[in-house]
Formats: sequence, C-alpha cells, structure tokens
Amino acid sequence: MRNRTILKLGGSVITEKSAGSAGAIRYDTLKAIARNLALYPDMPLLIVHGAGSFGHPQAKEYHIQEGVTRENRKGIFETHQAVRELNTAVIDALRSSGIEAVPIHPLHGCEASDGILIDPVFGHLDRMISLGLVPVIHGDVVMDRVRGACIVSGDQLIRVLAEGLGMDRVGLATDVPGLLECDGSVVRELRRSTAHQVTIGNSGHIDVTGGMEGKIAELLALADHGIRSEMFHVSQVDAFLAGKEHGGTRILPEEL
Amino acid sequence: MRNRTILKLGGSVITEKSAGSAGAIRYDTLKAIARNLALYPDMPLLIVHGAGSFGHPQAKEYHIQEGVTRENRKGIFETHQAVRELNTAVIDALRSSGIEAVPIHPLHGCEASDGILIDPVFGHLDRMISLGLVPVIHGDVVMDRVRGACIVSGDQLIRVLAEGLGMDRVGLATDVPGLLECDGSVVRELRRSTAHQVTIGNSGHIDVTGGMEGKIAELLALADHGIRSEMFHVSQVDAFLAGKEHGGTRILPEEL
Repeated sequence: MRNRTILKLGGSVITEKSAGSAGAIRYDTLKAIARNLALYPDMPLLIVHGAGSFGHPQAKEYHIQEGVTRENRKGIFETHQAVRELNTAVIDALRSSGIEAVPIHPLHGCEASDGILIDPVFGHLDRMISLGLVPVIHGDVVMDRVRGACIVSGDQLIRVLAEGLGMDRVGLATDVPGLLECDGSVVRELRRSTAHQVTIGNSGHIDVTGGMEGKIAELLALADHGIRSEMFHVSQVDAFLAGKEHGGTRILPEEL
Repeated sequence: MRNRTILKLGGSVITEKSAGSAGAIRYDTLKAIARNLALYPDMPLLIVHGAGSFGHPQAKEYHIQEGVTRENRKGIFETHQAVRELNTAVIDALRSSGIEAVPIHPLHGCEASDGILIDPVFGHLDRMISLGLVPVIHGDVVMDRVRGACIVSGDQLIRVLAEGLGMDRVGLATDVPGLLECDGSVVRELRRSTAHQVTIGNSGHIDVTGGMEGKIAELLALADHGIRSEMFHVSQVDAFLAGKEHGGTRILPEEL
C-alpha cells in the first residue's frame, strides 16, 4: 500500500510567532512531534515547515516582497540564514528520535517567476523518500525571474510537492483546531464550491506570505488537482498519522 | 565586459587533508582568500570548494561510492553534514570580508545518474551572480538514479557550472603550483592532444573522487567545450583575479 505522506508543521506551531519573542523555537513541541513520527518508521514521509518568527522579520526589514535589487540583496542571505537556523532545529529534533531527516533548502535548487515556483525538480526528493529518508523543506527566500527574489511559503511548497511527488496524504498541523469560522467553530469540510460560504476568522499572526487565506487558496488548488488535505491542531498529529478522527478541517475535491 | 569567473578552492587548500587531522579548517587561508576577493567587488563570481578532510572520511566509512541502500542511507546525512560545516566556514570567512556569499548545497537541488549530474538547473545561480551575490557550492553527496546516492566532486561541479552558466574564466587554487610532472616541474599548457605526454605526479592525498586525474579529466572535458581553465597555487589567487601570470597550468582547447 502506498501511503506517501506530507506533514506540514505551521510556523506558529514550532516557533513563538507573537510579537516580542522573535526567534524562539518551541523545542518541546518539536520533540513531541518527533516522538509521534518515530512510531511510524515505515511511512514514506516528507515534512514541510513554515518560517514562523524566523525569516519573516528579515523579509520585512529588507522589503523582500517588494522585489530584490542590488540595494536590498543582503536580505536574501539574512532571511535565508534565519529559516535555515529553524530548519536545523527541526532536523535535530527529528534525528534525535531516530528519524532519518535530511534538510532541503528551496533557495539552493528552486527558482520562481513572480512569486510562483517554476519547473521545480523532484527526482532527488522522490529518491530520498523511496530510500526511507525524510526530506524536511521549509518556506524560504528564492530567486525570482521577475522580482529578483521572493518568499515561497510552506503552503505553496505543499501544493507543488504534493502534486509533483504524487503524495497520497497531506496534513497540516496548526495552532488552531482547523479552519475556523468567525464564531470559532471548525469548518469540517471545505470544497471550492462551498468556500464562499465560509467567513474565515483571523489567525492573529503577522505573515508576509498571507496567513490563513493564502493557505486555503493553496489547499483548494491542491483539491482542484484531486488531492485532499487535512488541517488539524498540532496535538492531533498522531490521530492524522494513524488515520483517525482529528476534529479538524478536510479540504476536498468537488464531488463528481 | 563580461568577466564571469569561477574560482575553485581545492579541499586540500582550505582544510588539513593529511591523515590524523580530519576536520581541521585552514581559517588563515580562507581569510587571506576572502581579503583578495574583496578587492574585486564588481567581478561576477561563483565559488566552488572541495570537501577536503570534511566528507571524505564519512563517505568512506559508509561506502557511499559503492552505492546507497536502506542499509547505509545514514551516510547521506553524515557526509552532507560534514561538507555543510566546511561550507559554513567558507561562507563566514567571505562574508566577514564584505562578500555577499550565499551557500548552495548540491544535495538540496541536484540529482545524478551513475555518478554524473543530470539536468542540473542554473536559473537561480545565474540570477544570484547577476545580482552581485556569490554562490558558494561544494563537493557533496547527491541522490543518484542508479546508485541510490553518489559523491559529486567540486571538479565535476566546475565543469557543469562553467558550461551551464557560460562562465568566462575558470581558476583552480590548489596546494601545488599547478599540474606537476613526475620530476616536479609545472606543466604550463595542457591540451587533449598533448595530455598523453604528461606523467602526472601523485598529489599524495586520499580523495574518494579521484584526485588530480579526475580533476584533469573534468578540465579537459571543459576545454573540449571551448572553455579554458587555469590551475595555480593558492598564493596566486590575486594574480589569477588580476589576469596576471601565476606560474601555473593552463588547460586549453585544441588550437584550430
């Protein structure tokens, strides 16, 4: 049975994302997730994580999203270095639990055009997963044909990777129980045709890549390609891995 | 005037490569090279470095060159981590001299087939160089369609990058004055048609990627594509950058 799984760890799950605590990693959360994942040693797995409080401040300081020229080019390294530091912490936590995690930095092999990844290559990732390695990829600054450089979010990566690698399951661990309506209730199922009925609550976090609305747009695009995804609270990672009820949101293709 | 330059820093130039000193970085050498490079802030530049005593011991311990399966897959991370550590030292030295160095790890974006890189992408590197950034790439373990994984040497990278990025100048800083004959004299010019007349001296270093003979094979292949390269002692980096006589070896295309 194929069971290729992408697990996305939201930036606000693995870092303190609120103001005044830039750069704080939630090591306890990382350890707990790593212990959960270690229970499924044979699951073909790829992990994507957001940048959280790592990278976003640098991206804002250097105005990366407004385009990069020689004047603000220094922001490319500074932004990358910050998310790279977070990625190292994720790798360390996973490897400490015996998971064969391998870092993958988008800046090193990807290119974008006007904010969208173009012709991304997957052969090496496919091979890693087949060999039982766990590639750990993250939101990053990447070079851009139109803007000089841009930020590619973990959510865009999920969509591109899930399609390109033919993943079977996509799960997003977040700091909320799922997609929330304004009244705080969880949207249990979301489809393109019903999305307009949902008034998305504000997640309260700054995010140069668009936050919840950008996330939902990417997941609906994934559903358009026939790939379903699930969004749940980080405490429900084990339920997701086990294929049990996690009380979150399922983003589904249109019913035929 | 286009003056796109690749500078290769040999593994034995930037690390203590002899037995018994695994993992020692030559920080003074790195600093001296960085100070030299800082004198040419407008030179479009890409740097490749070898692994030296970083990576080779791990590659040997895990028998990476004999192919990688689930049994020795742990060697992929271990080998990569070692060269990554060296790359970080190179980046730090360059940035301390004001050079906008950016790390590029081949494992993160490349794939090989039976030891040869296939369909490598260059768009992001091209863009970095155009923006005045200095990509710093290194010999690395990469995933391989035939062998599972393999080692790609800095010398293979030079050839692929010089061709793919249309570089104008290729210089290799080594710990010897150039390509040496058995009597210790420097071969001043080498062409494919004259290579058989040269009896290459032994550089005395262990190297899982083939040492001097592998290097010469890559540079002759580069010459076959019309790109000349130069090999010189590390003390002559400034002479190379300035376009002056460095007393080393020029590897040239056949004369028409």
